[in-house]
Amino acid sequence: MATDTTDTRDDSRPDGYVQPQVDVPILRTMLDGKYAEVRDLVRRNLVEYAAILEDQERLSTDEYRDRVRDLVVEMAESGQSGMGFPEEYGGAGDIGASIAAFETLAFGDLSVLVKAGVQFGLFGGAILQLGTKRHHDELLEDLVRGRVLGCFAMTETGHGSNVQALGTTATYDVEAQEFVIHTPDDLSRKDYIGNAARHAELAVVFAQLHVAGESHGVHAFVVPIREGGKVCEGVRIEDCGPKLGLNGVDNGRIWFDQVRVPRTALLNEFADVTPAGVYESPIDNPNRRFFTMLGTLVQGRVSVGGAGINAAKVALTIAVRYALQRRQFEATSDDREDLLLDYGLHQRRLFPLLARTYALHLMQQQVAASLHDVFSGTLSDEHSRRELEARAAGTKALGTWLATRTIQECREACGGAGYLSENRFAALKADTDVFTTFEGDNHVLLQLVAKGLLTDYASEFEDIDQLGMVRFVAGMAVDTVLEKTSVHKLLERIKDVLPGGDQWDQEAGLLDPNYQLAMLRFREEHMLGGVARRLKRGIDAGHNPGEVFSRCQDHVIRTAHAHVERLILEAFVDRFRELPAGGERVAVGLLCDLFALGCIEDDAAWFMEHGRLTTTRSKAISAEINELCRRIRPIARELVDAFGVPDEMLRSPELLGEYPGA
Amino acid sequence: MATDTTDTRDDSRPDGYVQPQVDVPILRTMLDGKYAEVRDLVRRNLVEYAAILEDQERLSTDEYRDRVRDLVVEMAESGQSGMGFPEEYGGAGDIGASIAAFETLAFGDLSVLVKAGVQFGLFGGAILQLGTKRHHDELLEDLVRGRVLGCFAMTETGHGSNVQALGTTATYDVEAQEFVIHTPDDLSRKDYIGNAARHAELAVVFAQLHVAGESHGVHAFVVPIREGGKVCEGVRIEDCGPKLGLNGVDNGRIWFDQVRVPRTALLNEFADVTPAGVYESPIDNPNRRFFTMLGTLVQGRVSVGGAGINAAKVALTIAVRYALQRRQFEATSDDREDLLLDYGLHQRRLFPLLARTYALHLMQQQVAASLHDVFSGTLSDEHSRRELEARAAGTKALGTWLATRTIQECREACGGAGYLSENRFAALKADTDVFTTFEGDNHVLLQLVAKGLLTDYASEFEDIDQLGMVRFVAGMAVDTVLEKTSVHKLLERIKDVLPGGDQWDQEAGLLDPNYQLAMLRFREEHMLGGVARRLKRGIDAGHNPGEVFSRCQDHVIRTAHAHVERLILEAFVDRFRELPAGGERVAVGLLCDLFALGCIEDDAAWFMEHGRLTTTRSKAISAEINELCRRIRPIARELVDAFGVPDEMLRSPELLGEYPGA
Repeated sequence: MATDTTDTRDDSRPDGYVQPQVDVPILRTMLDGKYAEVRDLVRRNLVEYAAILEDQERLSTDEYRDRVRDLVVEMAESGQSGMGFPEEYGGAGDIGASIAAFETLAFGDLSVLVKAGVQFGLFGGAILQLGTKRHHDELLEDLVRGRVLGCFAMTETGHGSNVQALGTTATYDVEAQEFVIHTPDDLSRKDYIGNAARHAELAVVFAQLHVAGESHGVHAFVVPIREGGKVCEGVRIEDCGPKLGLNGVDNGRIWFDQVRVPRTALLNEFADVTPAGVYESPIDNPNRRFFTMLGTLVQGRVSVGGAGINAAKVALTIAVRYALQRRQFEATSDDREDLLLDYGLHQRRLFPLLARTYALHLMQQQVAASLHDVFSGTLSDEHSRRELEARAAGTKALGTWLATRTIQECREACGGAGYLSENRFAALKADTDVFTTFEGDNHVLLQLVAKGLLTDYASEFEDIDQLGMVRFVAGMAVDTVLEKTSVHKLLERIKDVLPGGDQWDQEAGLLDPNYQLAMLRFREEHMLGGVARRLKRGIDAGHNPGEVFSRCQDHVIRTAHAHVERLILEAFVDRFRELPAGGERVAVGLLCDLFALGCIEDDAAWFMEHGRLTTTRSKAISAEINELCRRIRPIARELVDAFGVPDEMLRSPELLGEYPGA
Repeated sequence: MATDTTDTRDDSRPDGYVQPQVDVPILRTMLDGKYAEVRDLVRRNLVEYAAILEDQERLSTDEYRDRVRDLVVEMAESGQSGMGFPEEYGGAGDIGASIAAFETLAFGDLSVLVKAGVQFGLFGGAILQLGTKRHHDELLEDLVRGRVLGCFAMTETGHGSNVQALGTTATYDVEAQEFVIHTPDDLSRKDYIGNAARHAELAVVFAQLHVAGESHGVHAFVVPIREGGKVCEGVRIEDCGPKLGLNGVDNGRIWFDQVRVPRTALLNEFADVTPAGVYESPIDNPNRRFFTMLGTLVQGRVSVGGAGINAAKVALTIAVRYALQRRQFEATSDDREDLLLDYGLHQRRLFPLLARTYALHLMQQQVAASLHDVFSGTLSDEHSRRELEARAAGTKALGTWLATRTIQECREACGGAGYLSENRFAALKADTDVFTTFEGDNHVLLQLVAKGLLTDYASEFEDIDQLGMVRFVAGMAVDTVLEKTSVHKLLERIKDVLPGGDQWDQEAGLLDPNYQLAMLRFREEHMLGGVARRLKRGIDAGHNPGEVFSRCQDHVIRTAHAHVERLILEAFVDRFRELPAGGERVAVGLLCDLFALGCIEDDAAWFMEHGRLTTTRSKAISAEINELCRRIRPIARELVDAFGVPDEMLRSPELLGEYPGA
């Protein structure tokens, strides 16, 4: 056995197990990590403006939208919103800090979060990343201070996921040295654009660039849409109307009727048009140029993933604390009802989600750190950039699905009380719902992840079409990639991931992280090899690549999912190994085990189908999960309190102890 | 092989498979069943009042509530709401019709549905079932016509699931021949009571009856709470405030301060108090009396299950029709994007839910029919009544979870557009969310189902504490039941369910309904035996029954779930067998196979763990599911259209074909 015994949590074994004592401030400091101070700044701001949570129920839509706008501008004063911008423009030049600040904002009203995300992340990020000094000098300071509000006009009614096929045009008029922005048809109107219906003065508009009769693909332009509160000439804006949630954000539709902007309105970091009408770009390949531009916007994706994970923390905090004071049915005695959290099923409903939230929190910190390194220039190689994009996509998908699932389960676990708005789930559920869709539909993102894996798999093609997620969906990239892939690589790679020995998967302890990691690595490698072979076989047989892809699309998505879960477990185990000894370490270890075994249990059929899980061991894993839940039960309160969600963000006075008569 | 070959869908085999032609009106008639006319009446009413779907977004809460009240009263004029009441009071004396009408109402605004459910189902049902002629004569006609509005005041802040532990008291004052209704503390206030905050004049109040110093458990009383729009003396009502959904229903809290009502206010079908203060009841056992009373209210549970299933149909209709006109990415050709529904993953996301919705629709019809028979006196035996209660509980749980899951998946499958209120998912999602909680929390209901199974399992104890679901949760009934249970029964019973032969589970065709049924029967019997043994073993070992129960609570819930899925598949297969030959039959057969194989795939790990699924066969099932999805693809539109959701209820003009530019 190659198991590194220093990593097995031997103190978790039934024989020597001692119930850990958890110090909340210590655990919270561990979770907050490097940016604890930034997180605390945002926590204080949230508490100061806590009334917004009630305003949301009280105000009319227009009033609520204006209130949200005011808050976003006022909070910017504290510096929390501009942390990712260069210091010379009023920022702090710290991208990691900006992610930490944004994530923490998700404890509060989520319209505020999204409005801030549109202004500083999408609009500000586009100016910063796609623009050059002239745009920065003109706009950054004003936008960081909230003096100029903007929106990010990418999505159209006809095209959300397939951005390369947008219909809006930007035609260069060499005489006037202007671009003419135009909406050719209703399918090309900009749609769901946050900040557009009421507040934005500027829009970053993505449009097909035409110069001298030649098309150069999608580029971004700064276009005024409102001046002194009035919509500009040639621009038409319509309100998207009421939505399931996020009604403090003014989403709108925009049409452009031959709107003229100066040549300098083109955000020209990656391409420019000379006054004379010559198109120039340092990146020759139009596809690569497009995805390089998009790639600079990855921060938005990292932000949404983090927001989803933090919204899940709010729900878990409420549900766990409620279950620690709510009693129902005399289960273990005749004269007193039992606490909900003492029921095995209740533990099974909440604790695996708690463990997964810890796991995703730690993964998210890793992704945010890598975002910081890549965009601060510490890591500037192509590989790091691509790895970041894939991890951001995967973490966004799993983090936002976690939010949807966790909030739902927590709402149900609080019964009818969970349905009342004052108990927070209403807003959490409604507002986070779209997280799985915006900043990249989760399924499309997982396809992007899978595309990266398949490209890596055929490493000799690493540099071809590497960011071509869109064409991958279309199956067009797949045949290029796979034609020369040698399938026998699979077996070699699988061998590498095993901890050693033929019986590794049966002899190792269930709580041995090397066993857990090996299981998730085996699954990923095996799925990846399988999908590659299926694609190759279909294409070799002369079938339409799109149809071949469609037939194994569920397999593709599962592969990406398996990959991301493996990364998450690695991040979790790595972080666990770094922790100093103590009750907090033991507690995190329990959650890490629960997360790992939960991943295996959820996919137990697959592991059995592929000979890596005996039926006996599968049952043992389920029993172990129940045992872990029982061990987590006494420290559940500490584990949610360590998230540091301010009490004011929980509301729920009656759910959380100020219960009448209690 | 005992397989009955007349039941294998041989025309579905790859060799001889012919794509069926589906006639929507024919299929719809099959689905509508016996009460097609009633369903059409409600469909017409929904279309007439379709404006309510927009009112919900436009009006203030008070205006919306009043509008909902008006609609409920106006619709009652058509006769759709009173169908379950006796003809002499303005009803139609047809309980089956009343369920069909109510279910269909779920295609429209769900506040209207719930408000109608409170008035005619809960309030009216309590008067009808728990009251006697004096109450009927005084109230039924007025309430059927909507001239008297009432509410159903059972749940309290401190007790939702554990109704036997309610705190409100009703003390008989022999001098005055009155009951004194009182709320002793804030945990005993009535809570979440629909119709209470604004409209109800009467409440059916559940309270602990005290007569001459003796407690007789929970009984129901008719108590005036509002007169001429003013709250009555001694009554305090508070609005529950905004909720996640159903904001057209005025949920409130009620406190009673020594409120006096005449002796005749006791709904005295099952117990009475003489003027002199003697308590009398034809049912001696207080526990049984309580559950007999509750049992008469089972119609509410059947209604909510049906409503959930029908809400899921609305979501599926929109998502499937959207996926048939929305294109994204050029997958199979260079010049045209593909329809969403042509992607394998999209089919995998929607079609299993479509199949499950068909399955639950048919199960629900069976439950509604049995409700009709039991309450019309056709089936009056104790066994039928108990079976009905268990099936109603199980179908409610699975039907409402189906709604939550289906609406969520369909929203995500419609992308950002699905987030706009005009596209229906906002209301569907928010309004149905509480369905999993009210009329019995789903987990508590599944425990009730499991309790029934364990009681049946130990059939010699069939008549002991048979409705004691509450005590079952507490594990107290379990030891009584299991002490004398002979575990060897398990093996005998399992043998009976096998289609014959040792290799039955490997030789039968995957599309053989006998194979599918045998798999689900085996799972149920095996789980049931296992849970019984675990409970018995723990109790025999002297452990606290409550703790023993808590430790295997997830096993208990899974057993109940397996039981209900088996019943659903039986209902589906039975219904399929009755259908006349034709394309519609083939189509229903595809859905039946997809549902059955989906159940097995979802639990593949369990089947493998228990030696009933080889890894090869497990993979074959997944492949077969994909193949079924491909076969359903060409008839998907017909399959959702057959639900007969009026176009006006779908709204979503842009999602469904009146797309700009399309």
